[in-house]
Amino acid sequence: MSGLIFRQLIDLDSSTYTYILADSDSLHGIIIDSVLGNIERDLQTLHDLGIKLQWILETHVHADHITGAYQLREKTGAKIGMGKATNLVCADQLFDEGEKISFGSQQLSVIATPGHTNGCTSYYLKDFAVFTGDTLLIRGCGRTDFQEGSSEKLFNNIRKKLFTLPDETLVYPAHDYNGRTCSSIGEEKKFNCRLKLSNSLESFSEIMKNLKLDEPKNLHKAVPANINCGKI
Amino acid sequence: MSGLIFRQLIDLDSSTYTYILADSDSLHGIIIDSVLGNIERDLQTLHDLGIKLQWILETHVHADHITGAYQLREKTGAKIGMGKATNLVCADQLFDEGEKISFGSQQLSVIATPGHTNGCTSYYLKDFAVFTGDTLLIRGCGRTDFQEGSSEKLFNNIRKKLFTLPDETLVYPAHDYNGRTCSSIGEEKKFNCRLKLSNSLESFSEIMKNLKLDEPKNLHKAVPANINCGKI
Repeated sequence: MSGLIFRQLIDLDSSTYTYILADSDSLHGIIIDSVLGNIERDLQTLHDLGIKLQWILETHVHADHITGAYQLREKTGAKIGMGKATNLVCADQLFDEGEKISFGSQQLSVIATPGHTNGCTSYYLKDFAVFTGDTLLIRGCGRTDFQEGSSEKLFNNIRKKLFTLPDETLVYPAHDYNGRTCSSIGEEKKFNCRLKLSNSLESFSEIMKNLKLDEPKNLHKAVPANINCGKI
Repeated sequence: MSGLIFRQLIDLDSSTYTYILADSDSLHGIIIDSVLGNIERDLQTLHDLGIKLQWILETHVHADHITGAYQLREKTGAKIGMGKATNLVCADQLFDEGEKISFGSQQLSVIATPGHTNGCTSYYLKDFAVFTGDTLLIRGCGRTDFQEGSSEKLFNNIRKKLFTLPDETLVYPAHDYNGRTCSSIGEEKKFNCRLKLSNSLESFSEIMKNLKLDEPKNLHKAVPANINCGKI
C-alpha cells in the first residue's frame, strides 16, 4: 500500500490487535484499539517512526481490556474518536456512517456496524483494508448476547456493509485467539463458518444463541473504565 | 507487494512468528518457521488461500519450540530447506549463501547469518522484507551464549549482510515478546539498542556477555526433535 506506514501490534494477554497507520509524507497518523498496558510500547513505536498522532480511534467499548485512549490523548494531544452510537462524552468526536477521517493524504471511511455492541464501528481504508473490531473476526464474529448485542443487526451489517467491499480488502480484526493476523473479505465470504454466503440469518442466529460463552474475565473492570475512554 | 500473498501467524505460547508467502498467480508458496502445535491452523490457511506448498523453510534449529516441518512435509509433500551449516540430514536441501529459492515468479535469496547458532539463515525477498529468524530481532537479537553462538559473528553478519539491505526492507523476525510484528532495516540501524550503527563490536560483545539469560524452557525437548526436523 504505497504512501502508507502500517504496523500491527498485539496485546499478548488478551490477543487484542492494535493498529498504527500513518501517511508516509506528512507522517500524520492514527491508532486503532490501543491497550492501556501497552502504551509505552506504542508511544515508542510512534516516536521511532516519527509519527504525529492525530486520532485515537476505538472500534467499540471493549469488555476484555482497558483502552489506552485516555492516556494516549494526555501524552500526545491527539483526539479520541469512536462510533456515534457509543454516545460516549469522553470522546472528542463521535463518527457517523459515511464520515471520513483524514490523516495526511490518507482517509478512513466510517462504517457503522452495530451487532456485537450498538456502537460498533469499522474503519475502511480503500484499496487496502477494513478494521472490523469485534464485528467480523477471522472465521468468526463477536458475541451478540450482551451490551445491546443483536444477531440480526450483526448479520445484516456484515452482509450489506462489509461483504460488499472488494474481495481483496484485508480484514484486520480486534482479536484472533489462534494467532492469525489477518484475513480478507473474499476469504470470509467463503470460509467464515458463521457468516459465509451460504448461511441464512436463521442459521446464524441459531449458532449465536447456542454459543454459551463465559462472561469476559475483565468485563466489570473494563467496561466502566472504557466508557470513560480508559480513564481510571 | 504486488503479486505476493503474505500471512504472518503467531504461536501464542512461545511468541514465535510463522510466515506464509505465495506467488499470487501460480499459488506456489513457502512457509518459514512453522510450529508443530499449529500445523492444523497453518494447513487450513494454506487450503483456504489455495496455496500449493513448495518449501518448508527454517531459519535455524530452534531451542524454544518444536518445528512443524516434518509433519508438514508428510502432509503436503513440500521439501524441507534450511541453512547449510545446520548439517541436518533430515532436510531435503541445505542452502548456502547466495542461493535462490523460487516459488512461482517470486524468489528468496539465502543469506547465511551465523551468530545465534552456526546454521542461522535469513531469507530476503527483494523490495519487500527479510526474514531474520533469531539473528536480528526487533530492537534486539538472539542470544549468543549456546549452540555454537558467537557475538562477533552475529555482529558482523548483521552489520555486513542485513544492515546493507535497503532501509525500507521490512524485518520479520522469529519472535517478539512485546507484541510488535515487524520493523525495518532503517529502524534497526537507528534504534536497535545492541546493534545500532553507533555501537562498536566491543560494546556489543560486552552487552551480550552480561545478559545472564535463563536456559530456554523447552531446550531439552526442542533441540533433539528439531535436529530431526521436528520428527518425534
